Amino acid sequence: MVKVVIIGSGNLAQHLIVAFQEAAKSGKSVQFLQAYARNPNHLLHLLPIDAVTSDFNNLKEADIYIIAVSDNAIHTVASQLPFEDKLVVHTSGAMPMNTIPSKNRKGVFYPLQTFTKGKKVDFNGIPICLETENEADYKIVELVAKFISNKAANINSEQRKSLHVAAVFVNNFTNHLYQIGEQICNDHNLPFEILHPLIQETASKITTLSPHQAQTGPAVRNDSATITAHEALLTDTKQKQLYKILTQSIQDNGKKL
Amino acid sequence: MVKVVIIGSGNLAQHLIVAFQEAAKSGKSVQFLQAYARNPNHLLHLLPIDAVTSDFNNLKEADIYIIAVSDNAIHTVASQLPFEDKLVVHTSGAMPMNTIPSKNRKGVFYPLQTFTKGKKVDFNGIPICLETENEADYKIVELVAKFISNKAANINSEQRKSLHVAAVFVNNFTNHLYQIGEQICNDHNLPFEILHPLIQETASKITTLSPHQAQTGPAVRNDSATITAHEALLTDTKQKQLYKILTQSIQDNGKKL
Repeated sequence: MVKVVIIGSGNLAQHLIVAFQEAAKSGKSVQFLQAYARNPNHLLHLLPIDAVTSDFNNLKEADIYIIAVSDNAIHTVASQLPFEDKLVVHTSGAMPMNTIPSKNRKGVFYPLQTFTKGKKVDFNGIPICLETENEADYKIVELVAKFISNKAANINSEQRKSLHVAAVFVNNFTNHLYQIGEQICNDHNLPFEILHPLIQETASKITTLSPHQAQTGPAVRNDSATITAHEALLTDTKQKQLYKILTQSIQDNGKKL
Repeated sequence: MVKVVIIGSGNLAQHLIVAFQEAAKSGKSVQFLQAYARNPNHLLHLLPIDAVTSDFNNLKEADIYIIAVSDNAIHTVASQLPFEDKLVVHTSGAMPMNTIPSKNRKGVFYPLQTFTKGKKVDFNGIPICLETENEADYKIVELVAKFISNKAANINSEQRKSLHVAAVFVNNFTNHLYQIGEQICNDHNLPFEILHPLIQETASKITTLSPHQAQTGPAVRNDSATITAHEALLTDTKQKQLYKILTQSIQDNGKKL
């Protein structure tokens, strides 16, 4: 039985708590032991009061301590742990493994997904990017990852940094383009919902075609009449600038490939 | 029984032919009568030879002629039609209804979706943006749209132009961001597939949250340490420029809202 402690009470911490509870319920050899939260109230909708502590000195003996706090709090939190030589992992895509002080055995347990409060996600399809200092510990983090997901991947700190940048492009920046789509709809009395099927299909396409094969539209067709008409239509300076730059970037890519 | 003729043999024409054939098979009051193709061979995997013509003079009498050709061919094709006072619609998001010459009753039948050769799409969820010159004809295009989709919408030419620009942002530009994500993965020996679940969830989120609510990441958090680290990591000038501009655009939006 692998014993897990989660440190943190935010979005990701809560999703992890639920995922490990469900894994245990479904008969997996994992026990969710305890969570640490500065303010235990944040977790009482998920856990009984005796499963939450706000005192690092009351942390129970576990096989793995998973720190799910904001990037800039990882080092402080990990430094406050009152024990040594335990397996302590963080869950950040952006921070190196060495953010965790060397008094413990360090590792990374980074679920590559966007988590929203109140929106359930199925951990099973989520790639969990794993790294450990010691090979023996890798077996533990891999085992723990496989309790909640069927997609564990060995990703080192250098690769993870790049992966995080790639994730910003396909998630944060993509969502920003959705927001621009919504603004254009609002400005012209159109319901944004009319774009939903197109958004879903665009995302779905790249599971069967490469983005290069899937690229369509006036930019890649060099359809300068449509591009000029679109630019003339965009009265918002920012939107027009993004339209020009992204069109240019698609056309440059077309030449490169 | 509403009789439909499709003019064109490309992606959209083929998807429409299949959709109307299936609607007829499922008992809807629609008959797919005939297709026009400059080169009938392009359609012989879908239709018997006597259901395809390459001569406008052989077009049969139908209730609606749907022109599904590239934007800059619409006017030429519509001008060559040897009849008058029939209902002729085009399928373009970018072209005004008046691209069709006035000798026929004009309209627009624009399915707001991205179509890929060989990838089946379910027309049922696709919004079909409709416009006609005459009110009586609107009833016909609406009836025809509802044979293949449950989402018909009355969208005038001005709105459709804006909708088309919005579609470029959420489809073409988004796909370009996927391609950049793939390039970053390739450059660091990471499988692009690892980003697929994130891409799907990002698209799925905006069906329950507005893009504004769904926005996450270093830009909206004003996490300047991560932003600086990401910019330093991007060695490709184009990628770095896009990173900066999209980050700035997210931050400007945050202030505006």
